[in-house]
This record gives sequence, C-alpha cells and structure tokens, in this order.
Amino acid sequence: MSAFHTQGDPTGAGDVQAIGVGMLGYAFMGKAHANAYKTLSYMTWPPPLRPELVAIAGRNEQAVSEAARRYGFAKYVTDWRAVVSDPGITLFDNSGPNDLHAEPTIAAAEAGKHVICEKPLGRDAAESYETWQRVEAAGVKHMCAFNYRFVPAVRLARQIVESGDVGEIRHFRASYLQDWGATTEEVWRFDKAAAGSGALGDLAAHVVDLARYLVGEIDTVSAIAATFQPGRSVDDAVEAAVAFENGAVGTIEATRFATGRKNAFRWELNGSKGSIAFDLERLNELQVHYEGSSPGAGTQGFRTVLVTEADHPFWAHWWPPGHIIGWEHTFVHEIHHLLTAIRDDADVAPHGATLRDGYRAAEVCDAILRSAESGARETVSYRD
Amino acid sequence: MSAFHTQGDPTGAGDVQAIGVGMLGYAFMGKAHANAYKTLSYMTWPPPLRPELVAIAGRNEQAVSEAARRYGFAKYVTDWRAVVSDPGITLFDNSGPNDLHAEPTIAAAEAGKHVICEKPLGRDAAESYETWQRVEAAGVKHMCAFNYRFVPAVRLARQIVESGDVGEIRHFRASYLQDWGATTEEVWRFDKAAAGSGALGDLAAHVVDLARYLVGEIDTVSAIAATFQPGRSVDDAVEAAVAFENGAVGTIEATRFATGRKNAFRWELNGSKGSIAFDLERLNELQVHYEGSSPGAGTQGFRTVLVTEADHPFWAHWWPPGHIIGWEHTFVHEIHHLLTAIRDDADVAPHGATLRDGYRAAEVCDAILRSAESGARETVSYRD
Amino acid sequence: MSAFHTQGDPTGAGDVQAIGVGMLGYAFMGKAHANAYKTLSYMTWPPPLRPELVAIAGRNEQAVSEAARRYGFAKYVTDWRAVVSDPGITLFDNSGPNDLHAEPTIAAAEAGKHVICEKPLGRDAAESYETWQRVEAAGVKHMCAFNYRFVPAVRLARQIVESGDVGEIRHFRASYLQDWGATTEEVWRFDKAAAGSGALGDLAAHVVDLARYLVGEIDTVSAIAATFQPGRSVDDAVEAAVAFENGAVGTIEATRFATGRKNAFRWELNGSKGSIAFDLERLNELQVHYEGSSPGAGTQGFRTVLVTEADHPFWAHWWPPGHIIGWEHTFVHEIHHLLTAIRDDADVAPHGATLRDGYRAAEVCDAILRSAESGARETVSYRD
Amino acid sequence: MSAFHTQGDPTGAGDVQAIGVGMLGYAFMGKAHANAYKTLSYMTWPPPLRPELVAIAGRNEQAVSEAARRYGFAKYVTDWRAVVSDPGITLFDNSGPNDLHAEPTIAAAEAGKHVICEKPLGRDAAESYETWQRVEAAGVKHMCAFNYRFVPAVRLARQIVESGDVGEIRHFRASYLQDWGATTEEVWRFDKAAAGSGALGDLAAHVVDLARYLVGEIDTVSAIAATFQPGRSVDDAVEAAVAFENGAVGTIEATRFATGRKNAFRWELNGSKGSIAFDLERLNELQVHYEGSSPGAGTQGFRTVLVTEADHPFWAHWWPPGHIIGWEHTFVHEIHHLLTAIRDDADVAPHGATLRDGYRAAEVCDAILRSAESGARETVSYRD
Repeated sequence: MSAFHTQGDPTGAGDVQAIGVGMLGYAFMGKAHANAYKTLSYMTWPPPLRPELVAIAGRNEQAVSEAARRYGFAKYVTDWRAVVSDPGITLFDNSGPNDLHAEPTIAAAEAGKHVICEKPLGRDAAESYETWQRVEAAGVKHMCAFNYRFVPAVRLARQIVESGDVGEIRHFRASYLQDWGATTEEVWRFDKAAAGSGALGDLAAHVVDLARYLVGEIDTVSAIAATFQPGRSVDDAVEAAVAFENGAVGTIEATRFATGRKNAFRWELNGSKGSIAFDLERLNELQVHYEGSSPGAGTQGFRTVLVTEADHPFWAHWWPPGHIIGWEHTFVHEIHHLLTAIRDDADVAPHGATLRDGYRAAEVCDAILRSAESGARETVSYRD
Repeated sequence: MSAFHTQGDPTGAGDVQAIGVGMLGYAFMGKAHANAYKTLSYMTWPPPLRPELVAIAGRNEQAVSEAARRYGFAKYVTDWRAVVSDPGITLFDNSGPNDLHAEPTIAAAEAGKHVICEKPLGRDAAESYETWQRVEAAGVKHMCAFNYRFVPAVRLARQIVESGDVGEIRHFRASYLQDWGATTEEVWRFDKAAAGSGALGDLAAHVVDLARYLVGEIDTVSAIAATFQPGRSVDDAVEAAVAFENGAVGTIEATRFATGRKNAFRWELNGSKGSIAFDLERLNELQVHYEGSSPGAGTQGFRTVLVTEADHPFWAHWWPPGHIIGWEHTFVHEIHHLLTAIRDDADVAPHGATLRDGYRAAEVCDAILRSAESGARETVSYRD
Repeated sequence: MSAFHTQGDPTGAGDVQAIGVGMLGYAFMGKAHANAYKTLSYMTWPPPLRPELVAIAGRNEQAVSEAARRYGFAKYVTDWRAVVSDPGITLFDNSGPNDLHAEPTIAAAEAGKHVICEKPLGRDAAESYETWQRVEAAGVKHMCAFNYRFVPAVRLARQIVESGDVGEIRHFRASYLQDWGATTEEVWRFDKAAAGSGALGDLAAHVVDLARYLVGEIDTVSAIAATFQPGRSVDDAVEAAVAFENGAVGTIEATRFATGRKNAFRWELNGSKGSIAFDLERLNELQVHYEGSSPGAGTQGFRTVLVTEADHPFWAHWWPPGHIIGWEHTFVHEIHHLLTAIRDDADVAPHGATLRDGYRAAEVCDAILRSAESGARETVSYRD
Repeated sequence: MSAFHTQGDPTGAGDVQAIGVGMLGYAFMGKAHANAYKTLSYMTWPPPLRPELVAIAGRNEQAVSEAARRYGFAKYVTDWRAVVSDPGITLFDNSGPNDLHAEPTIAAAEAGKHVICEKPLGRDAAESYETWQRVEAAGVKHMCAFNYRFVPAVRLARQIVESGDVGEIRHFRASYLQDWGATTEEVWRFDKAAAGSGALGDLAAHVVDLARYLVGEIDTVSAIAATFQPGRSVDDAVEAAVAFENGAVGTIEATRFATGRKNAFRWELNGSKGSIAFDLERLNELQVHYEGSSPGAGTQGFRTVLVTEADHPFWAHWWPPGHIIGWEHTFVHEIHHLLTAIRDDADVAPHGATLRDGYRAAEVCDAILRSAESGARETVSYRD
C-alpha cells in the first residue's frame, strides 16, 4: 500500500540510547520488573534509555526459559554468574530471593554493571553493609528497590513535608498488614536461611524505608516479635515503638496475620501544622490535613487527594485525572528514575533508595530483632 | 558465554498464532489500546493470539509517525483507508473520534477485518444502527469498547447478580461525574459535529451500558439536559429517571461539571436480597451487602471487597491479593476477551459489548435527548 | 448538713420564662420531640424558654397515659381537641400521623397557640396550603419540622453556599434510602388515607426541603414512581430528574427498598468553585471541596470536615471536638430555634422551615406524583 | 378541661424505686453524667431505678450553684465531704478531676454509698489500688467510668469475640488521637499533681481498658513517652509495643498532638478467623471481617456494620435503624448498667468496668511509664 510510511525502528525508542539489562529472578518481582522495562519504553516517552532485555538467570531451566520467552529476554541461563559478567549488559537487575541478593549484586557491580537489587538488601545488616560497601566502591549506580517511594502519593507526601506545610513532624505510625501467613506451603519467605527474617525483612523493611524517607533517621526501637505458625523459623509479626532523631515518636508494625488485610501498608504522620495519611490498598489517594487552610473557616478536615492530576508526581506519563494507576506502576517510575540517573550520571538519592538506604533499613530491622530478643530499647547505629 | 541458551523467539509469544492489528487514532484511546496489545502479550500468558502492530492511521502525519515509533507499529499512514484494506491486518481497532467511528469500522468489516470500535458507537442511534447492521452482515467479530465491563469488580457484580444472591433488582442509580467541562479549550468532544453529543455520549453511554449489563433493558427515560458553558453545542450534563423492563427504577446522570469529581463513575443496585455499589475512582473495590449473611447475627453491612484475589475475575493475570491494578488494565482484559473470541470463533457477548450493545446504548441516549427536548417520558425501542 | 445550699428552683431553668407545651402523638416523633424539650432545658443553657410539658394527646388511652408518665406531661387526653384549646398551652407540637396534621394544627393556631407540625405538612399540597394559610392568618409562629436543616453539617453547608465559596450551583443529586419497605406489617405509613403518600411524603419531602434550603426553588420535575409490595396503596419509591429555577439540575430519589441502607439520606451539590456532600448515616461529617484552596498546590480534594468544633453551628451546646452527636439532637436544635423565635418574636425563616416551606415541599411532591402519572415533565407552581 | 386525666407522678418513673444521687464535679464529665441520669429516666423505659439528683459538690460556689440549677440537683455544696455522707444519697458519682478521685470515692464507699468514679481511677497504680481495695472492702457496688465499653459497637465487638467467630486473637493495634495539646492554656489535665499523667491517664487508659475488655490481660509493654510542649510536666504522647497473656501482640498509642484528629480512638483486632475495627469518630459503625463467610464466594471483605438495629446492644432504648446516636449516649448505657446492678444486687463486671478494672488499667499505664523511663520491656503485674 503506497500510502504507508514504514516506521523503520523496530526497537521503538528510536534514537534513544539502548541499555542492556540482565535480570536474576523470574517470579513475583521478576514479573514486576520485566513489566516495568517493557512499559516504560513507550509510556514514559521518550524513555531516558531504551532497555534491551539481554539475559535472564534463574535456577529452574524450564521456568527461566519460559520467562525469557514471555518477557522477551534474548537469552537465559541457570547460572547467574553468566549474567553478571555478560559484556552486553550494563544494568543488572536482581529480582531474586534474599539469599541471592549480596553475592550476585556485588559481582555485577564489580564487573562494572549498574545494579538494582530488591529489598531487603541483605538478610541482615552485616550482609547489607558488605553489599553496599563493595558496590559503592565499584563506582556504579545502585538502587535498592524500595518501590513505594515511587507511589505518586508518597512522593507528593514527601514534597508536602519538605515544603514545611505540615510543620515539624511529631508522629509517624505505620503498619504493613497482610494475611497469608497461616499457610503450610513451603515458601522461601518462611525459611530463615533464604529470607533472613519473616515479616520483618519482607514488610517492615518497607515501613522503615518510608519512615526514613518521610520523617528522618530512627534513633531507638522498643520491639516485640511473634511467630504464630508452629515450627516456622522466622517472625510472623513485629511490633515496635520508635523514636526518631528529630524528636518524632510512633509505632511500626508488620504482620502476615492480619486477617482480611491484603496489602494494607498504612501510615500517618502528624506535624505541628498538618497531617498526612496513606493506605497502599488505595494508593492513588493521599489524605492531607492542614490547620487553618482556606477558604472556609470551619471547614478544615482531611482531604482525600486523588493523586492523578497532570501536576502530580509521575503523572505526566499516564492518563487524565481520576484514571487511576496500579501497584505495578511504582516499578515503572522506579526504573525510569534509575535509567535517568544512569543516563545523566546523576544521583539516585534522595528520591531513589540507594544501597546505603538498603543498609540503613537493615540496621533498623536488626535493631528491632535485637530489641525483641533483649527486651531492651535498642539504639540504631549506622556504619559509614 | 557458553552457559547461555538463546531464546529464539523475538516475538515473545512463541507458538501462539499472530494477529495483525491496524489502529485508527493515537490520542487518549489510542494510547490505552496500544498499551493493552503490548501488555497482554506477556501479562496474559500465553496470550490467546499474539498481536502484531501492523499499521496505525491518523490525520496528523507527525503525530502518527511518532505514535508508530512509540508503540512499535510497523507502518503509519494519514489515510485510514489504507489500514482498513491492508491484507496484513486481521483486527481493526478504531480508537478515533466519534465522527470517525462509522465509516472506517464498516469499511474494515466489509474488508473482512474483525473490528473493535470505541464508544459511543455512533453519534446517534441511526448511525450506530447502520454501523452495527453492516458490520454484522459482514460476518466478522465485533466489539464496542465499553471497557468498564472489564473492571474485575464489575464482572464480579455481574456474577453476583446472576447468582441470585442479591435477589430481584429494584433500583439502579448511577452517575458519571467529571469536572473538566469549564474550559474554553477547543476539544472535539465539545463539537456536536464530531462528537454527536457531550457528556451524554462520552459518559452517560458508559452508564447506560453498565445498566444494561447489570440490570437489563431500559424501558423509559424521563430526562433533562443542560449546557452550562456559553456557546457550547453539546450537553454538559444529563439527568434522567429511568424504568427498566424488569420493573427496577432509578436515576442516571452524567456531567462534566461536578467540581472535584475526576472520574467518579458510581453506581449502586439494590436487590430484594442484597445490594452492590461501585466507584470507578476506587475500581479495585466492590461494596456488597447481603441480607442475612453468616456468620454473625447482627453483623450485616456493606462489605468492601478488595477484588484482587486469585479467584476474582481476570486476576489470574496479575499480582498477589491487595496489589491493585489501574484503569488501563480494563483494556487489557477487554482486548484479551476479543482475541479469545477471534481465536475460538466464540461469541463476544454476553460479557463483551458487541456493536449491537453499542447501538442499544445509543438508542437509550437518543431517548434521553428526546425526553430532554420534549419534556415527555420517552420509551426506548430497539430495532433488530 | 448545714454546708449545703438549697437550689430552690425545681424547674431548673430559674428565671427563664416558662412556656406550656401540648403535644399530639407519642410514638416515634413524639419520643423525639419530648426528648428535645427535656434535653434543651439544660443542654442549651440557659434555654430561650423553659418548656413545661402540660399535656399530651393520643388515641390509645393506655399508651398516652404511659407516655405522659414517661416524659413527664402533667396530664393526658385521648381527644386532641382538649389540648389545642388548653389555656395553659402556648405551643402546640403536632407529632401525630399525617392525617392528623391539618385539623389539629389549624385548630391550635386559631386558638392562639404557636405550632410546630411534623412533616409532611399535609397529605397533599391542597391540604398543606390550607393549613399554612389558616395558621398564618392566625398570626402565630409556625414551623414544619424539617429537622435535617438542624444537622450542624447541613447548616454549615448552607453557610458555605451563602458565602459563595463554592460558587454558582450546577448540580444537586440526592437520595433518601431506607430498606424496611418489604414488610407485611400494617403501618399507617403504608396507608394512603392516613399518610397521603409513601416514600414520597415520608422521605422525598425531606430531600425536597433540603434542596430548597440549599439550592433554591425547584422549577420542573420529570418523575417515576414505583410500588414493589403487592397490594400497597402508596409509592415505595420515587425517582425524579429535577431542574431548579437558578439553572442547576439534578436527581431526587426516595425509596424504602434499598436493601442494606438504613437511613441513608445522601446529597451532593456541585458549584462552579467547589462541592459539598453529606450522608445522614454519618451526620457529624461534611465533605467539602474547594477548587484552588491553599496551602498546597496539588492537594485539592474533598475534605472530611468533622462538624464538631466550638465554632460550628449549634456546637456551643455540646461537647469538645470529635465527641459526636446523634440523630435526635437535630430536634433539640430545631425546637431551640422555635423557642427563640417565640421568645424574641423573631422570624422562624430562613433557617427554620415554616408552614409555607411545608406547603412548598408538598407542591414539589405533588408535581412528582403528577409527573409519575402523566409521564410529562411537570412545572412546580406555588400559590401565595 | 374535663377530658384530661392528671398524670399524677411528677417524678416520671412512677412506681420505679428512686435512688438518691450525689455528684462531685460539674465540668465536662459532670455535664455528661448529669445528662445521663436525666436521659435514662425516660429513654430507658422503665428505668431500673429512678435517679433523684440530691446534691452536687464543686469548689467554685458560683459554678456549682449554676450547675445545680441547670441539671436540677436539689442542693449544692463546695465541700464534697457533705455529699459523701449525706443520708439521702445512695450513689456517689465522682466526676471530679483525677486528684479528687481517691479520697472522696473511698469516703463515699465507707459511708455506704455505691460509687462510680471517672477514669483514670487514680493518678497512679498505687492510688488506684488503695481506692479499689477500700471501696471493695466497703461492700458497695463500684464502677470505673470506662464509658467506651458502652458504645453499642464495642459491646457488639465483645460479643463477636466471645462467640469465637473471629477465632483466636493475634493482634490488637489501637491509638487514641487528639490534637489540642499545643495550647498554652492552663488546664488541670496538664498538671502532674492534679492529673497524675498526660495523654497516658487521659487517653491511653481508655485504650488499655478496651484492650483488656476485648483481648485480655496485657503481659508486657515496651514503651516511649514524649512531651512536645516546653515546660509541661506530663506526657503529651505515649507509644508502646505490647504483648498479651494469650499470645496476641500489638501497639498502643495515645497523643494530644495528632493534628486534625479530634477524638480518634481507633482500634483493630485480628483473629485467626476474622477481624474487627472501630473508630470513635464514627462510633455507630463497626468494621467486621469474617474469613469464609457466605453467601458469595469471592465476596469477603470488611463489612461496615451500622450498629443501630433493634437487636444490637443497647438499641432497644433508641430509634429505628440508621438513626445514629452520639458520644454522650455511652454514659446513659453505662449508668443504666450500674443502676441495674444496684437494683438487682448483681455484678457490675464483666461488662461494666469495676474499680478493679480501674486499678488494672493503672498498672498497665504505670508499666508504660516505667518502660518509657527505663528503656526496658516491663512486665505488668497485678496485686489482688
């Protein structure tokens, strides 16, 4: 048909520079990350870099081969070492289980790859520290995949806090509630050797990261841990009273035994001039209260802000107001942020969590466990 | 690296049969549909058919060329006629403005293409009827893109209604509220020649379609229309009292002047044994009430069902419970449904809206306008 | 004990002037009104006048005698005529059924008593008109007990509308939903002779009154009525599209067949600069949205105002912020308002509904019935 | 008018036995209690006993004289000793400030009066213990006014827990949030000598009491306290991780610095088979989730139970469904419960809090303070 023009760029992103991506893991997180690379290529247009899915590694050959076909990785392998040293790969994406975070991430960085590693960075603070230090020393860009920083509502919350509109923060209370813990299925997330911890590293780590992102460093924790399922080697729930360095106090909780709560990561912060609240199950909304806002004396109250306007964080990529996005979109924003930092040789921090942030979250998590065991209030201290 | 296996299928979906897709339109709906084709190819795994984005048509050459590059269409053209007759195209996706629904859709069908056409099907019932009739006569699969049938919560509502658990339906009240109408920007949606109507075809058509999908055929409408913006040629709002053939009664409303409501398509139905309510701004939730449910005498109430469980409609494609999806996912489900029908030579109805449904919605919309003009209660009558 | 001082005023309100109250009716409304007289005597301190419960009338001698004892009326009678002419009575409170509204209210007024009469004022507009006219001619204070004007949140809404902060009103949508209609119990509310109408006079009259109070006069109605229960002589539900004289349009609905909705009187109004929404089941809250409110670009949204602050309407009588009040308190405010008007010889209007308002609501309700019967849009016209 | 019958019982409650009530305090709590005595006399019909407001004591003569007149106490006095020994008084109601709880309550009991004392029972556990012991020894009925046990929704929650429908409890998280702490007004509640503690005794005591009522005894607390206002002698906020004797774990928090939260006492408990959640600002609602409830596979979710049905706790006294009650009604239920226990010589426990419960709450509060000071997890131990 002579009327047609051929669009001669099968890769899509035209003159945008490509970046070879190698991935470890093809399960829950692998699916989320793979979707992000594919989606950002056309939704965040033009993308900062054009992801080429070069290779994927996983222990089960049939599964990893299927994943390669499904997501369009050019090759696959059962030994991750092949990926971290592949010359066609510039970014190593570690979406594997916790016990495969440290070694491959370090190896990739030391092979000169930029790295993004799922949370928790390590199974404990020591492993996390080692990972951070060696990756940092390698001089590459690094990111710990605390994706909830990339919820538009969370970024907006951070902007509000920074603007001073809610004043000095006095309280942060947060709980991450799920309810699938009462299963006898064998999952690596219940295995201390593989996971390091239970709800702590899986859920509380997210809580700690947002606490740090929104309020500041945590100074002390007074905590309890509980394991409800007989024979399980990791915690099912942690509960902590926390004090921040800036004087704010609050509570942090994570559990897999909150019947009826599916993915209820809820937090609220109270400042001297206002408050902000959030619920991950309604992630497109942010509750914001300002003292003395106008117009309308007598009409203060928590506003349900639908964070879907053109001037809201990340929203330029998406839809008209009110057309909400899903959980998976946080990964699109996160990886878009990382690719931008790589392209521009810019800092991943402060909005992206670096491996330093991954380490620091691990220190707080370790302090929670120590306090749960000792019964004493534990001070969080960080190594540099 | 010898350890690698090459994944030899750059198209992704392996031995899944391909289907050539041609699209008209690259704006809001074009973006939503293009995303759906790309996403379903790996998220609904294995996809029923493997979409190949063959060609895209649009009036602005620069814009359509950019869209082709962005979404990966192999070629582009400014004259849609090239697309509807292209031999490499099996499915014609009409995401263009309303005045480009009828002619291209008919032409594509008469060229033997399956068609999906955005709503409203035509600018009025007559145009919609002609489109339906001629496409139907062509013997192809056809779908009118009433995507809200493909919200998991809406499908679940339909299942509940069909189960009889809420009994005989007495009421359906629905309003589709947006607030961007007070603009002086020139948009085709405000132009009667291009759009046919205003909030009526844009928003009320969705309401009418779900009314028909969930409750049944509408018998009469008693309506009012209003245009608030001076000089505008289409309605800004419609309000109607409606009676259904099965005896249910209720209200239907659509407006672009509900300040603060962004995409609030809200409906509630009351049955003799229970009720169901929905809000598109919280599309992952369904409110369900049953009389006399157990356990717990004294604990009846509207349940906030988070429609994100493995056994919920469409959820097999997505994430663990509580990890919500976005507005755009409705298109993934919708086109997945159509591709499945094409592959299996199965009916698009009853869960997919056909062009017959598009026509019937148009008859109700026309009746609303007639009633608004005449002041009389208007009976809806359908041609076969 | 010599330390004690005798509080020598057994009536409580000290030097506040007494007002003799005679009541007709001891059932649901009688209980609500009696509670109001007793409560306002000490809660709204000092009360505008000190109610003396002089006499109560009711058809069932045992029941009315019990009511007198329960609420502390000094005497009781089965013939209301004794009450309306009792010289000790200054205020006649008609809490009887609808068919006992007109005659006793007129008789009381013509005997020089101030009157408060439950809604609907009459069983139709003609009866309501007659009642209003004759009471007005008698020169007494009169009030139609549309108590929802006296919800603090509703009064606040009125203040916001009057302030102009939400701009020009474009929409009002309201539904009053209950679910007890599917009963075979014989209740006077289902008897056309006693009640005049069903959900219309019982529930829609409230909706119409607040529509008039908050938005303005209704110009036209396009309505449907339905009776679901076999053999019932009154409507179970009414549905109407309405247009206001000021150009606003919307819907009005009332039903006793909304399964799971207990007392859900919900309304929302949209103005050019903001919106307000309310739900009687959460009567201490008002949802308020302002375009462009500060601080915080990007943080607009519906505020959940907890209408319980010292500077909120009626709140001076009650508790610290957040200590919510109940449904019955609306009657305390209402009768307090009436007693103040009597004491000060001030107007009951605009915040209190007069019998004129009762009549006007009846005209709208009649127009709804006419439209439901005729199928035509009916214009509301008022007699002066 | 000869038609009238005289209702010869000016006291109202007819042949119901009277009980003389003496009160200490006329401020916030005095108003709430006085209202309860007056309201229950006709709303809970027939009342268990008929309260006669014999005498009220307060330090400010003008204020107490005004209160006597307002609420109808026959006499007043500035020295509470006159009240506790008055022979006409059978029930002593201590609504005074915390430093006037112990001595008058003990004196009244030792003078043979039944006692109800506001919470916290004492300014610390030692004072509370002494009060409980001496009152118990006196052989009178006693109640600590933890009124939130008498919210219908809270009683319903207790019934659900007892029914086993939510299974074994794993979690209890609760926070009592107010925001009036940033004031420089001098209030006795900020004075350690008068109040004993700040948010702890004022707010956290309520949390602890409901924790004990709904879940069971608290075993350990790991806590933090904070004072935000310079120069204040009491805590502004407490935060604690808690473990219950039955293995449940959770968090308890109370603060006067949660900007925008007015009276937000919120708690949630998670059991092995379901969950329950509550918010005092919406006290007529209870959120209840059951795993595996019917009908409707796929429609589990938190039910918003509007606790206003005839078969709901305390509702027989009030209104038709959906006609909500207010905060003050909890006192009506509470004192009705006490009067019933007095009339029937029945136990105040388990649904009413006794002084033993007041003492036990104080032990937990003391443990929270000890833990906040020591930094160690503190075990709660009770004296018998």
